[in-house]
Amino acid sequence: MPSAEIVAVGTELLLGQLVDTNTAFIAQALAGIGMDVHGTHTVGDNRERIAELVGGALERADGVITSGGLGPTVDDVTKEAVCDALGAGTRVDGEAIEAMEALFASAGRELRENNRKQAILPHGATVLKNAHGTAPGFVAWRADGKFVACVPGVPFEMKAMVAGQLLPLLERHFHLRETIVTHTLHTFGIAESEIDHRIADLFEQSDNPKIAVLAHRFTCDVKLNGKAQNREEAQALIAPMADEIRARLGAVIYGSDSETLAFVVLQLMRERGERLGVAESCTGGLVSAELTAVAGASDVFVGGVVAYDNDTKTRVLGVPPKRIAEFGAVSGEVASDMAQGARTNLGSDWAVSVTGVAGPSGGTSEKPVGLVYAAIVGPYGVTAHRLQLSGERAQVQQRATIHALGLLWRRLRAEPKGARET
Amino acid sequence: MPSAEIVAVGTELLLGQLVDTNTAFIAQALAGIGMDVHGTHTVGDNRERIAELVGGALERADGVITSGGLGPTVDDVTKEAVCDALGAGTRVDGEAIEAMEALFASAGRELRENNRKQAILPHGATVLKNAHGTAPGFVAWRADGKFVACVPGVPFEMKAMVAGQLLPLLERHFHLRETIVTHTLHTFGIAESEIDHRIADLFEQSDNPKIAVLAHRFTCDVKLNGKAQNREEAQALIAPMADEIRARLGAVIYGSDSETLAFVVLQLMRERGERLGVAESCTGGLVSAELTAVAGASDVFVGGVVAYDNDTKTRVLGVPPKRIAEFGAVSGEVASDMAQGARTNLGSDWAVSVTGVAGPSGGTSEKPVGLVYAAIVGPYGVTAHRLQLSGERAQVQQRATIHALGLLWRRLRAEPKGARET
Repeated sequence: MPSAEIVAVGTELLLGQLVDTNTAFIAQALAGIGMDVHGTHTVGDNRERIAELVGGALERADGVITSGGLGPTVDDVTKEAVCDALGAGTRVDGEAIEAMEALFASAGRELRENNRKQAILPHGATVLKNAHGTAPGFVAWRADGKFVACVPGVPFEMKAMVAGQLLPLLERHFHLRETIVTHTLHTFGIAESEIDHRIADLFEQSDNPKIAVLAHRFTCDVKLNGKAQNREEAQALIAPMADEIRARLGAVIYGSDSETLAFVVLQLMRERGERLGVAESCTGGLVSAELTAVAGASDVFVGGVVAYDNDTKTRVLGVPPKRIAEFGAVSGEVASDMAQGARTNLGSDWAVSVTGVAGPSGGTSEKPVGLVYAAIVGPYGVTAHRLQLSGERAQVQQRATIHALGLLWRRLRAEPKGARET
Repeated sequence: MPSAEIVAVGTELLLGQLVDTNTAFIAQALAGIGMDVHGTHTVGDNRERIAELVGGALERADGVITSGGLGPTVDDVTKEAVCDALGAGTRVDGEAIEAMEALFASAGRELRENNRKQAILPHGATVLKNAHGTAPGFVAWRADGKFVACVPGVPFEMKAMVAGQLLPLLERHFHLRETIVTHTLHTFGIAESEIDHRIADLFEQSDNPKIAVLAHRFTCDVKLNGKAQNREEAQALIAPMADEIRARLGAVIYGSDSETLAFVVLQLMRERGERLGVAESCTGGLVSAELTAVAGASDVFVGGVVAYDNDTKTRVLGVPPKRIAEFGAVSGEVASDMAQGARTNLGSDWAVSVTGVAGPSGGTSEKPVGLVYAAIVGPYGVTAHRLQLSGERAQVQQRATIHALGLLWRRLRAEPKGARET
């Protein structure tokens, strides 16, 4: 299996001012075509250090993929460093200049000298066109067949270039015949150590597929990575192990692979022919945003109300002011009223509501930061849930969002359509 | 200046199944106390490779900080690998066992054998207590004063441990007297290459503070990193350069450092004593979520309506069905109606609305994916803006969100309170 190392370039990454998401994307892409990623690195915009790191990685692996440092500014030095590491000269790519001129003309902007710098490439390099920006990428080859591929740091430019051009090129070059397939099972409402306890023996038994447990906020994933000559064989390795894990964990598994809680909730509701509304306070729009992140949400999700102000809870959701005065805005009673108000005013079959104290201020000894109520109303009535969540403001908001959707999922599963109608 | 390298441990990181945010946090924390991060690495849950990487990093730098691989499962091998790299034996930490027993007892759970494994530490290591989880961290010392610090991979456990315990310990150990201070200027509505054009000469002139331009979605940051003996001196280095950049870029700078567009909008509105409502369709709650991510948003932000369904636009925002029929839900007219409906029904002084085609489906030749209208209504009337945004669904949603807030910011700046009342 050919191997690669990944290098992210940028002083801002080393200073921790920007989180690198490119490396994860590239690593996943390489795993998909059966290249083994041995290690990944980050280095500043420093020509000498980049050249040293790329040179070292080329000794250990069959190729190196760098992201970042191809821009027009004077601190972009990746290309120069790669030429140093390979001992390669440079040339100006005429097509890249033309493409840039066309892009700038269509935007009514002038091509500056610093943009022209982006069309300089190592001699003999294969150009990777940039469909979304000015910096072309490239693959430079060493005489022994090892390579250095450089792609831009802007994530969506990089992604299109890697998926559309780099991967097919590497597959051809290395005659790749091995692939890693990943199958992920998502759980809600079970601790990592409890999952580990139930399936620890499988970890030890199985090297292929390799099993890993990943803890998130209120969810845990079980990942199965199968390695084989092709997708079908890898999937055949994974299937019996996935069945065994499903049998052991059962009711806590809400979905697999790209299925989010929001996706599963929308899917279950779509199958029932029912629709969903949202009323949220402390989560401030995140529950609606989770749902609308799913393409095609519009046939199920009618809309939501972010009732941040108490007056808005009354105006738009019809929560009686005396209920707020009696129980407080953060209470099971008001959560229930919000959900019922959303169901009535938005005209949906189901509604989910969240109200709580996200912090950092606003907490009291009776209602501390992290106290959240979620309510679910459906055709068969309303349920309210009290949660005490830990973490800072953003974490409380995110956890409350996941929990609200998880509770809704449980009710949808527990109440098949028509179950209590008879 | 003492140096460090950072190692993130986890096969799931190498496979790209999880994005590492810990390294950025640790790098930023180290910069803040004046430690130089030369490079960062990621490695799988492989005892031999971790030991090799940690050993190599210890040759280049004064210390290594690892995150991840301290959990209870059998694939957590960081501690064993670090002992290998240092040639250290292990001991069981009695206090850590007691703390775990107390934590489990309070949650009504049983301490399992795999949790006990977490209390095994290298001989002579300094324990870093875990306030939020079961895995203690530690700092193991080499005879020559170099160190390996290991912290958990769960971000909020890691953050509390690094900030509260590791940094003070390193400051004492290295008698740190140098610090890096970062000052960031945020811009809206100007291209990276245009910023570069206006300030390129400053890049070359200035090595301290070091200047970098970072492009985001619709915003660009200019970062100034000043290095000095203490915060005050670093700030004094930065101040004149920041003034120069402000003078050159002027009206496009909306804020600095931790100030987001949402924060600045809320701040400006708070100063005016006015309040804000939101009506959004294709952004599905993200505009409200951006605003409520800011602590204390509640005195300005009254609430929002996610009018995903056309019926909801009419029911909750009072958009006339015949306007939707005549102009389409994605139009400047309906965007204006949505904003005005939000202002009226939520009782706010200002409202911002967004409606568009986020994709991947729903686009037509007349109204393609990425077409978004944003409207702003304030005391002096309504303005509607047509945007054509690129990218996938999530990018269109995020860009539309940033753009809507940016347009609102521009109007708040252009219309001082009371300006047209006279």
